[in-house]
Order: sequence, then C-alpha cells, then structure tokens
Amino acid sequence: MKQIYLDYAAATPMDPAVIKAMQPYLSDKFYNPSATYLPAQAVAKDLAAARAKVAQILGAKPAEIVFTAGGTEANNLAIHGIMRRYSKAQIITSAIEHESVLQPASLYEHLEAPVKKDGSLDLDKLTKHVTDNTVLISVMYANNEIGTIQPIKAVAQLIVNIRQQRQKKGNKLPIYLHTDACQTANYLDLHVSRLGIDLMTLNGGKIYGPKQSGVLYVRAGVELEPLIYGGGHERGLRSGTENVAADVGFATALELAQTKRAEETRRLQALQQDFFGLIAKHLPTASINGSQKNRLPNNVNLTLPGQDNERLLIKLEEKGVLAAAGSACSASNEEPSHVLSAIGLSDKDAQASLRLTMGQATTAADVTKTVIVLAEIVHNPNH
Amino acid sequence: MKQIYLDYAAATPMDPAVIKAMQPYLSDKFYNPSATYLPAQAVAKDLAAARAKVAQILGAKPAEIVFTAGGTEANNLAIHGIMRRYSKAQIITSAIEHESVLQPASLYEHLEAPVKKDGSLDLDKLTKHVTDNTVLISVMYANNEIGTIQPIKAVAQLIVNIRQQRQKKGNKLPIYLHTDACQTANYLDLHVSRLGIDLMTLNGGKIYGPKQSGVLYVRAGVELEPLIYGGGHERGLRSGTENVAADVGFATALELAQTKRAEETRRLQALQQDFFGLIAKHLPTASINGSQKNRLPNNVNLTLPGQDNERLLIKLEEKGVLAAAGSACSASNEEPSHVLSAIGLSDKDAQASLRLTMGQATTAADVTKTVIVLAEIVHNPNH
Repeated sequence: MKQIYLDYAAATPMDPAVIKAMQPYLSDKFYNPSATYLPAQAVAKDLAAARAKVAQILGAKPAEIVFTAGGTEANNLAIHGIMRRYSKAQIITSAIEHESVLQPASLYEHLEAPVKKDGSLDLDKLTKHVTDNTVLISVMYANNEIGTIQPIKAVAQLIVNIRQQRQKKGNKLPIYLHTDACQTANYLDLHVSRLGIDLMTLNGGKIYGPKQSGVLYVRAGVELEPLIYGGGHERGLRSGTENVAADVGFATALELAQTKRAEETRRLQALQQDFFGLIAKHLPTASINGSQKNRLPNNVNLTLPGQDNERLLIKLEEKGVLAAAGSACSASNEEPSHVLSAIGLSDKDAQASLRLTMGQATTAADVTKTVIVLAEIVHNPNH
Repeated sequence: MKQIYLDYAAATPMDPAVIKAMQPYLSDKFYNPSATYLPAQAVAKDLAAARAKVAQILGAKPAEIVFTAGGTEANNLAIHGIMRRYSKAQIITSAIEHESVLQPASLYEHLEAPVKKDGSLDLDKLTKHVTDNTVLISVMYANNEIGTIQPIKAVAQLIVNIRQQRQKKGNKLPIYLHTDACQTANYLDLHVSRLGIDLMTLNGGKIYGPKQSGVLYVRAGVELEPLIYGGGHERGLRSGTENVAADVGFATALELAQTKRAEETRRLQALQQDFFGLIAKHLPTASINGSQKNRLPNNVNLTLPGQDNERLLIKLEEKGVLAAAGSACSASNEEPSHVLSAIGLSDKDAQASLRLTMGQATTAADVTKTVIVLAEIVHNPNH
C-alpha cells in the first residue's frame, strides 16, 4: 500500500540536489576549514559561498548569517543571546511559540502575548505588555501547528515606534524583534529588511535539507552572548569545527525552496481549498483551526468533535495515511497542545484535533483519499 | 603530485562504512523520530540502537549517552551544565585544555592546573588547587597538540579521596571529573568505569565520522543544566529534532575506531618511532614536544629552533605535505600556542613548532618523505 505522508511540518525528505551538493564534504573535501593549506582553504571558500548564498536570499550581509545545528539551537541562541546580556530585562513572546522559544524565555522575566481565535497575534494586547524594560519580542512568522501567519511587519512597526519613544525619553535599553521562521521558507518572503526583523531562525530539516542544519540571522549591530564557546567559529557565536556538508546542504535547500515557493504555494493553496471543501462535505461537524486567510498553504488543522486523535491516527495509518496530532516534539507527552488551548479550544476538543501538513509529493488524489478515509473512520467507529 | 595529509587531529576523512550507515537517514528514513506512526518509530528504534552501541563501547547505560552536535558542544554542555547548577563553586582545568573547555570555564571561578615539561598534569599542584568549593575538574584524556596522555585514573582516584574527606567533614558539595576525549577514541580505552570519570566528550569528526556529531557521556545521577532548551530531546539535555544520520554515523565510526584501535595503535607507534628516528638523524637540532612515553601514537610535535612555522608549512605544502602549526581552531590567530607556552616553550620556539598527526592512510614512505622534505627546507632556506 502506497503511504500518504502528511507530516511535512515535522520532517521533510531531503531533496536529491541537496544530498548531491553535500556529497563532496562527506568524502574528498573533508578538510577542516580553519586549516591553512590550500585544500582546506578551498573548503573554507565553499563555506563562504554557502553563507553568501543564504545572505543574498535574505537580503542580508554574509557576516549576519550564523550557521547553527538546527532551528532549536538558533532559537536558543537568539533568546539566551539577548537575555543573558540584559538579564534583568523582559522578553515578550506570543503564547503559541514553539517550545524552543517558550522554554528559554521562561528562564527570564517573560510575558506571553495572547492570540485571537484564528491564532493571529493580538497586537493591542502585545502593545500593552511592552514596558520600558522590554528588550526582546519573539513572534513566530507562521505557526507550526495551525499554520497561522503572524503580522510580523506590524510588530516591526510597533518596535520602530517604541524605539522612537525610548529615544525621546532617554531610555537607552534596545528592543529587538526575533522571528522563528522555521515553517515558512518554503512559502513566504524571507527578506529581512522588508520584514523589519533583527533576528530570524531558519531550519534545514523543514525545507528538504539536512536535519540539525540551520541559521540564525543576526542584524549587524545586534550583540549576542554565545551559547557554545571555544575556537571562535561563526564570529564567536557558534564555536565548533564547521559542518560544511550541512551548511552547504542548508544553503542549497533554502535556494531551492525560495525558487519554488511561488509555484508551490499556488499548487498547495489549491490542494488546501480541496481539503477544506471535502472536509465540509464529508465531515460536516469538523471545524478548521487557524486563520483561513493568513495561513501557510500546506497546513490543515481540524477538530472532529467527540473523536480521540490517538485512535484516529492509528486508524489513518492502517489505511496508509501518516499524520499528526500536533507538533512532533510534544507527540510523546500527554498534555493537550498549548497552541490549541491558546486559541480557545477545550482540552477535549484539542484531543480531537489533527494536523495534516502537505508537501512536494502531495497530490490531489492524496487529499481526496485522506478525507474519504477519515470520514469512514469517523462515521464507522467499529470499522 | 600525491599529497601527504598529516593533519588527522584537525579532521579525518569519513570511513565509507560510516557514509553507508548514514545513507538511509539522508533518504527514505527521513522521518522525525518523535512522530507516532510506524516508519518514524522505526527511525526512533535505529536511534536507540545507535545509542545502545555507544553505551556498550563505553561500558555505560544508553540513558547516559547524550548525542550532541560535536565535541565543542559536548564540552560546553559538561562545563556550563555543572557550573550553572553550582554557579558559585570552582572549576579546575589543566592549563592545556582545548579552547572549548577553557573558554566556558573562564566564565566561572576557574583555576588552571599547570603541566610538567612533557605536558602531563602536575598531580601535586592539582591537588593543592582543590578547595572545599571545587565542583568540577576537567582534564583532557590526551592533548590535541602534543599528544600527551593524561593520568586520568590518578585524577579519578584523587576525586574518590576528596569525596571521602568531604563526607567526613559534612561538605555536601559534589565533585565531578570531566574528560575531553576527542582525540583518543582511535587509540585508547574508553571504558568509563575503568577510567573512573563522570563526564566524557567524544567527537565524530576526529574518528572518521561526520563533523558536528558527538556525545557527552553523563554518569547516572550527575545533573546538568541544558545548553539548548525546547522539545526535551536527549532527556531534556539537548533539544532539537535528532540528527539520526549523524548519530548513527557517530556510533558506526566509534565502533570501527574501537575495533581497529589495537592494531592501528601498533602500526602508528612504529611509524612514530620511524618519525622520531629520522628527525634525530636529519634534523639534529629539532626537539620533540610532549611525552615520549605517554603519547598518542599518531602525534609528532617538534620545534625547529630558529625556523618560522608559517614559512615551513607553505614550503611543505609546495612539496605535497599538508601539516599544521597547532590546533586548527587557533590557526588563524597570531597568538603562540597556549599548550606550548604551558610546557615552557618561548614564543619564538612555539612559532618554530609543527604538529604532524598521522592516520589510517599514513605510510612509512610518507613518514620518510616528510622528514627528508622538511630537512631540505630547513637546511636550504632559499630552496
């Protein structure tokens, strides 16, 4: 039986072009890029080219790109990096950030800004949370569970206003905007100046690149404490002999993702509409979680009242559909999703919810089959 | 011209068997091991098998193995992990640790224990440094620049004695032994109970495995603060979707290294003796740095009085020999090696020193050619 994979938000297969780009660094070009002989310098040059490629896509300078071992590490570098420099200042995050933002933030003075029913940030409430002591606002670009895209530009404008007020008042505390963009590189614009952000996390494992590859964009002038100290690699922000294979793989994956994003967004938006239409028809009691308007094109998150998502996932797998209840990171714990709670779902409804995330291999036939199979499972409990 | 690579301490090529073991996780087995469906659970099982393999080689339990993104990260996790729990306590390291130990240690109350002329730890002086407030001693298993193997078991015995004294005195502060074993897995015994250590760092990039793969062994009962917070992977000590390819690659490389180590040690010890003999014959003014007795079999570190190592390295490369002045991490800075300073070399002598590190592809002919070429360069400055 052909399996239908609908968990692209948890992991993407690697693009063959990415593996091909990495191959030399797994074999002949194994040299330590810090060494002085020419073959090592050639590796260092390839690493610099990968950095420049990432920078160009983001509209950034190469020196603003810090390669990390994954998105979680990049989020930690952003949060600890700022908060350890201003350890008595305050951080505000949205209530629906990933654990790799919420957990580090919780070690400092931390306020969570609520979101509306569609998962979008409540900008008025965020504005009220800001004090003279706020140094960092971290709002994800799009949510990993419900797909809602956040109004990052509006948050950036808020920060511009706060900076102006602080300058007038003589408050010298900086204020920075970080965005976790792990789920967005396949679909959204990543140009850092257009977005107006200071720090941005990207993750290779969600864009058909290698796992534990990633980047933290750090705007020039923003100073961070490192997480990992040592030989001073990555401008002192991430020591350790560089993983050139992963870094080149990441750059290749990012370039492919951004090249394909317009077309892939259109294609998946059409499939997403199919999904919503078929759900309305075959599962009329279901409700869709997250924004219908500002939404990642690959995300479908639905609640099936009265159902148990654990049972649904097992039955779906028996029929060849691989899906998720929410974020893979919290799949093994019993707590209901903090994201679904934040948008107002009861624990019972949260545990009746499924996340179906599409990707490059998803077809219209897959969408149809998934909804038909799901309707069978829901309507024939003993099936 | 065939190149003779003599910088295995900086980077090793990957063993084809390691690449082969990683391949499935770069293609079909891309699933997130935290997901609930069976193909993801199969990946989780493979990860558990890799962890069990590493544990078995170390004589440890699988739950004591934390996969990290490299040796630098593992060293940081050990040092910050203990010191952030006991932030007013003291850490002692040897004076010749790697930067990824010295830099994190320097953020706390830190004393450096001196080494003798051969680079071996001065145990008497170390003992005198210990106070009632010492919580961590970090001594590398063998040095990356001069190859000296440290008396880890004697340090472990010292710690046993301190624990007994503290129990008598009612001092409840624990004291732990960490060893950075990055350079040793190809040649030395890694059995943690025989060594008597609490924390041990291993690095895939130095044992024919993938770069930014590694392990921190954490003895059961030793509690650490994580460096990287989030989804709670690696028992909460290293969050982030697991890099299963790297972890399986690391386990495979470690197993191969330990299987080959007896034979490879004998083979390289013979080549090392050839090296020393040829140096004595063709470069009579040269002196060998580091211990002649307790030494990694692949390391040759020599001082050529009056020479400039930068010039020597360029000339050696012209003749097809790729070597190093010291650690690759510090190759780009102008400071003389802190290791050579610690064993008593003047700055001038430190800058007249070379590190030649052998590995699996090194032959007797390579050794002979290297010394002959080096003698030519030294004796014919205009050559």
